[in-house]
Amino acid sequence: MLTVNARSTSGTGAPFVATTIERRDLGPHDVLIDIAYAGICHSDIHTARGEWGDTLFPLVPGHEIAGVVSAVGSEVTRFAVGDRAGVGCMVDSCRECDPCLAGEEQYCQQGNIGTYDAIGRDGRPTDGGYSEKIVVDEAYTLHIPEGIALDVAAPLLCAGITLYSPLRHWGAGPGKHVAVVGLGGLGHMGVRLAKAMGAEVTVLSQSLKKQEDGLRLGADHYHATGDPETFQALAGRFDLIVSTISASVDMGAYLGLLKLDGALVNVGLPEEPLQVPAFPLLEGRRSLAGSMIGGIRETQEMLDFCAEHGLGAEVEVISADQIDEAYDRVVASDVRYRFVIDIATMAG
Amino acid sequence: MLTVNARSTSGTGAPFVATTIERRDLGPHDVLIDIAYAGICHSDIHTARGEWGDTLFPLVPGHEIAGVVSAVGSEVTRFAVGDRAGVGCMVDSCRECDPCLAGEEQYCQQGNIGTYDAIGRDGRPTDGGYSEKIVVDEAYTLHIPEGIALDVAAPLLCAGITLYSPLRHWGAGPGKHVAVVGLGGLGHMGVRLAKAMGAEVTVLSQSLKKQEDGLRLGADHYHATGDPETFQALAGRFDLIVSTISASVDMGAYLGLLKLDGALVNVGLPEEPLQVPAFPLLEGRRSLAGSMIGGIRETQEMLDFCAEHGLGAEVEVISADQIDEAYDRVVASDVRYRFVIDIATMAG
Repeated sequence: MLTVNARSTSGTGAPFVATTIERRDLGPHDVLIDIAYAGICHSDIHTARGEWGDTLFPLVPGHEIAGVVSAVGSEVTRFAVGDRAGVGCMVDSCRECDPCLAGEEQYCQQGNIGTYDAIGRDGRPTDGGYSEKIVVDEAYTLHIPEGIALDVAAPLLCAGITLYSPLRHWGAGPGKHVAVVGLGGLGHMGVRLAKAMGAEVTVLSQSLKKQEDGLRLGADHYHATGDPETFQALAGRFDLIVSTISASVDMGAYLGLLKLDGALVNVGLPEEPLQVPAFPLLEGRRSLAGSMIGGIRETQEMLDFCAEHGLGAEVEVISADQIDEAYDRVVASDVRYRFVIDIATMAG
Repeated sequence: MLTVNARSTSGTGAPFVATTIERRDLGPHDVLIDIAYAGICHSDIHTARGEWGDTLFPLVPGHEIAGVVSAVGSEVTRFAVGDRAGVGCMVDSCRECDPCLAGEEQYCQQGNIGTYDAIGRDGRPTDGGYSEKIVVDEAYTLHIPEGIALDVAAPLLCAGITLYSPLRHWGAGPGKHVAVVGLGGLGHMGVRLAKAMGAEVTVLSQSLKKQEDGLRLGADHYHATGDPETFQALAGRFDLIVSTISASVDMGAYLGLLKLDGALVNVGLPEEPLQVPAFPLLEGRRSLAGSMIGGIRETQEMLDFCAEHGLGAEVEVISADQIDEAYDRVVASDVRYRFVIDIATMAG
């Protein structure tokens, strides 16, 4: 066992405190990663605050992990000491069901094993990236290409793949009109990725407050959803709308923005059931769908794509003592666009 | 102008009465069809009873029309006198928008022109198939293959294509598990068509009352949705679920029956918004979609497919005086599976 510094919260609403956790001894297929940066995802906050049901406390969140391999197990073939490595939202899955065999481990029928707030194969709770080191099976470890700095790479492991996967699955590319709803941690990656894929990109945000930013990030158009005229002006415009927001919205109005055969894909997770009128679905053979992160193979593809196109997240680097403050600012939408914890500050 | 016998209703809830209507003189692209049979679709009832908003009264419903061509306009090329011909839910569309140009006239951006309860290009209200003759542009007229009797062909023009189109669009075929929700006029065609396409077919019906019928129609399995165990036993089973019902259902439960990337397609039109929990969409990249009849080209393909596979609707032929009674029986689900009006009884 390896004892490492971490930050944990002991219960719903409790502040983060310095602690130590145990990492398992390296198994034959494991890699040990010295974590350099860990992103703060809104899911961390939902979990830490008990908003998604029972959380396993004490909790060490963090599933946007970037670092460097410092040791490898005896049978590891894909990683070597010194390699830049990342870990996303899952550290294992059953490896036997149809989705796992198809490389879609995120949809594992047994449920994938989360990077934190889950029970690992060894029967122990998993601890996430708000810590100095992590031990992960190489099959669930990503290579971070040289072209991407580790701080801006970290959020790609969740925010990046969460947008990349549906954009690819629903065919974002040249000639396609894509809208991204919400310009936060997820949305800003959606704009960059969709633009790099060659699509015409529109941001739909509550107000025009971040318009300048949206255009700088690569959006071709920017519209306020607070203005009812937006829904008239853009009726039937989009092949694909990716919604990153969790708030309840007028689903009929959004579906009306889709072309024939268009899809509205939720990657946010509204708590209340969506109120979906049937007619806007029927009259354009439209779809309402959902998408959840991406498989390991596709996550690697996304990282390589980002390196090729010079993409990373826009981050604000914080120290380990600023986690609570950062959480409050994320909830207040006061971050452009992702907080990343500098793990080097954790030892102090 | 041609005066023909018809049955019409003068207002919401008023009984059907014998009347005459005027059919336009044949334009160069028109065909005149002597109607032999007209199916009774639930949409006829919704419209006649004003349940879908403002209805244009007096109303002559009927958009499942089968008959024989008795005259053709000067420039008609695809039909000749004596040809067996059908008309479905639309008699025109803009012919210029992207969906029209793609042969998906049902999704015409100007709105297709309905066979009844619409305003035609000549500015006059359209009248449907509860009448002796109809004049239709040949571009919106279908050939009914010799292999299908006209009475069992009539319901194919709406019920048949309404199921055929989504089954094709979402890839029903060998190796695919398809569920059809509801075994009525639409559902019984769904079972026959999906089976003929090579899919494994399950009927999901409220009770097991029609189980014997369902299996006879070609279903491989039959389950009662009134039994909660059904939703456990069939979790993750289907590639495609086509729902023909208009009642509100537990959408989360139905979505849970889908495999990864599965689609739940509504062809019924529930009045209340669907209550759709987001998580079942996310966790399997599932889709909720809608589909509305089919284009003219695809409707012809469907008719040819039915002829090839010896498929028609199961019908109960009634006289023109039995329309009101038939409506009540449709609403009470007391029909197996489609009423068809024998138009020869109309002259009396």
